[in-house]
Amino acid sequence: MAPRGALPQAVADGDRPLALIAGGGKLPAAIAEALRRRGRPVFVVAIEEEADRDFAAYPHMRASIGAVARIRQALLDNGCTEIMMAGTFRRPRFSDIELDLGTLRLALSAILRLRFGGDDAVVSSVARIVEGEGFRIVGPDEVVPEMVASEGPHGRLHPSRQARDDIECGIAAIMRMAPLDIGQAVVVHDRRIVAVEAAEGTTAMIERCAALRKSGRINAPAPSGVLVKLPKAGQELRIEMPVVGSETVRAAARAGLAGIAVEAGGVLLADREDMCRIAEAAGLFVFGFRPSRQRLP
Amino acid sequence: MAPRGALPQAVADGDRPLALIAGGGKLPAAIAEALRRRGRPVFVVAIEEEADRDFAAYPHMRASIGAVARIRQALLDNGCTEIMMAGTFRRPRFSDIELDLGTLRLALSAILRLRFGGDDAVVSSVARIVEGEGFRIVGPDEVVPEMVASEGPHGRLHPSRQARDDIECGIAAIMRMAPLDIGQAVVVHDRRIVAVEAAEGTTAMIERCAALRKSGRINAPAPSGVLVKLPKAGQELRIEMPVVGSETVRAAARAGLAGIAVEAGGVLLADREDMCRIAEAAGLFVFGFRPSRQRLP
Repeated sequence: MAPRGALPQAVADGDRPLALIAGGGKLPAAIAEALRRRGRPVFVVAIEEEADRDFAAYPHMRASIGAVARIRQALLDNGCTEIMMAGTFRRPRFSDIELDLGTLRLALSAILRLRFGGDDAVVSSVARIVEGEGFRIVGPDEVVPEMVASEGPHGRLHPSRQARDDIECGIAAIMRMAPLDIGQAVVVHDRRIVAVEAAEGTTAMIERCAALRKSGRINAPAPSGVLVKLPKAGQELRIEMPVVGSETVRAAARAGLAGIAVEAGGVLLADREDMCRIAEAAGLFVFGFRPSRQRLP
Repeated sequence: MAPRGALPQAVADGDRPLALIAGGGKLPAAIAEALRRRGRPVFVVAIEEEADRDFAAYPHMRASIGAVARIRQALLDNGCTEIMMAGTFRRPRFSDIELDLGTLRLALSAILRLRFGGDDAVVSSVARIVEGEGFRIVGPDEVVPEMVASEGPHGRLHPSRQARDDIECGIAAIMRMAPLDIGQAVVVHDRRIVAVEAAEGTTAMIERCAALRKSGRINAPAPSGVLVKLPKAGQELRIEMPVVGSETVRAAARAGLAGIAVEAGGVLLADREDMCRIAEAAGLFVFGFRPSRQRLP
């Protein structure tokens, strides 16, 4: 609960509805549910062609990602001052942006910023636009900290010494690739990087490893190999914290991996309980390693 | 033709059969055919469970990759002093290596070297073992230079200015990833790296891009995007020169790419004529860029 201001009529931000900008996948619904359990009101903005879950149980609206002026007005009408984005978003086509007078200025500045950047640039631009409009962007660690990876094993299984070597190797690789705006996740077998995630997403990358093992291109016996996932250096964690969940664990089990390692405080667990239960049943560890980016160049 | 020695009875290496260690795919057969056109005799060692073409037209043997002593004797019996490896090889399981007395020493030293390395380490170990036995490893540029990419456009189509930007971006990315022993190839769209090759191979990576475009994760209209492929820094080009061919071009066309860029002198063209014809018909450029690694850190 946020501290209350001195004036009795002032409503603290933490009591106002959190505006949840919902993209694709089940994460937005999981966050809405976590907020409900915490007693925090929510106003869902389900983004057209992205959000694919039912938000009928919450105050909500549907809007195109480009309908900046309309979303802004709805947030004001609902008393929202804090915004959180969750779920998957495709890179908007510029032609999707509704160029009314209110959005023209925003859209032009965003276009200029986006023109030469990668995904990180898209995300930071969204953040700058939203904050320029007087809203505050909040991250999962602030409003649903129980959904963020903690340090150490998540469940009873621990990484072996070999798996710890693979984890270190994966962390070093992702940090090296950070300037390239790729490689939020890698799969490492015996200190060899066998898959790098770029635009395809983590699950698709893990599924590729299952195929690589089947074809003999990965010929270590299962279980072996680790999925390592952490935010890129400079990634805007309030907006785009990397996510793993039971879907990730199931894919990792199918690929014969030994486990999943994520940065504590830097990766969102979409469905922590389900995920840990499934991982334990499949014999996979889920391990939160201590953030080490500040120690590295 | 190699220069002849002063003694008339001496046989120059270039007149002796080239020992072609043939792995998977059509490349070994294409090289054998190119050698035949040049009048160079060849002795093919078709590796069990790898070589999948018919080498009945050439003097040949079949052998497991681990049958080091047997292969060595066959090369001596056939008067081979030069060896070339071509085609795809899976990482051998140590249990596949025939541990007779002759190979035990070689195998142990290879195992020690391989234990912590990536693919580059495997390849260099093979090279060191072979050369330790008194043979000389030759590369494609030495015996079939017409199969190596040259500088400039291969055909009538040239990269656009945007494609040249993507090519530069891809080269920089691959060089940055070199210490990770991954990323011989990337696909770049509008200066964004959308796919990185690790263990899956170039064609599989390109096919992923077709799927990414279909799903909207790449939303630039086709044709756009470039496959960039070059050797990793320090890669042993005599043994493992990266390859593109008509299969690569067909995959790139299906993925809606604008073209393919390869390092001149550093990438083997498995079937140059077919490849260029198919690329032109599909509207793709194939461009050989000047090696620039010496100018970069």
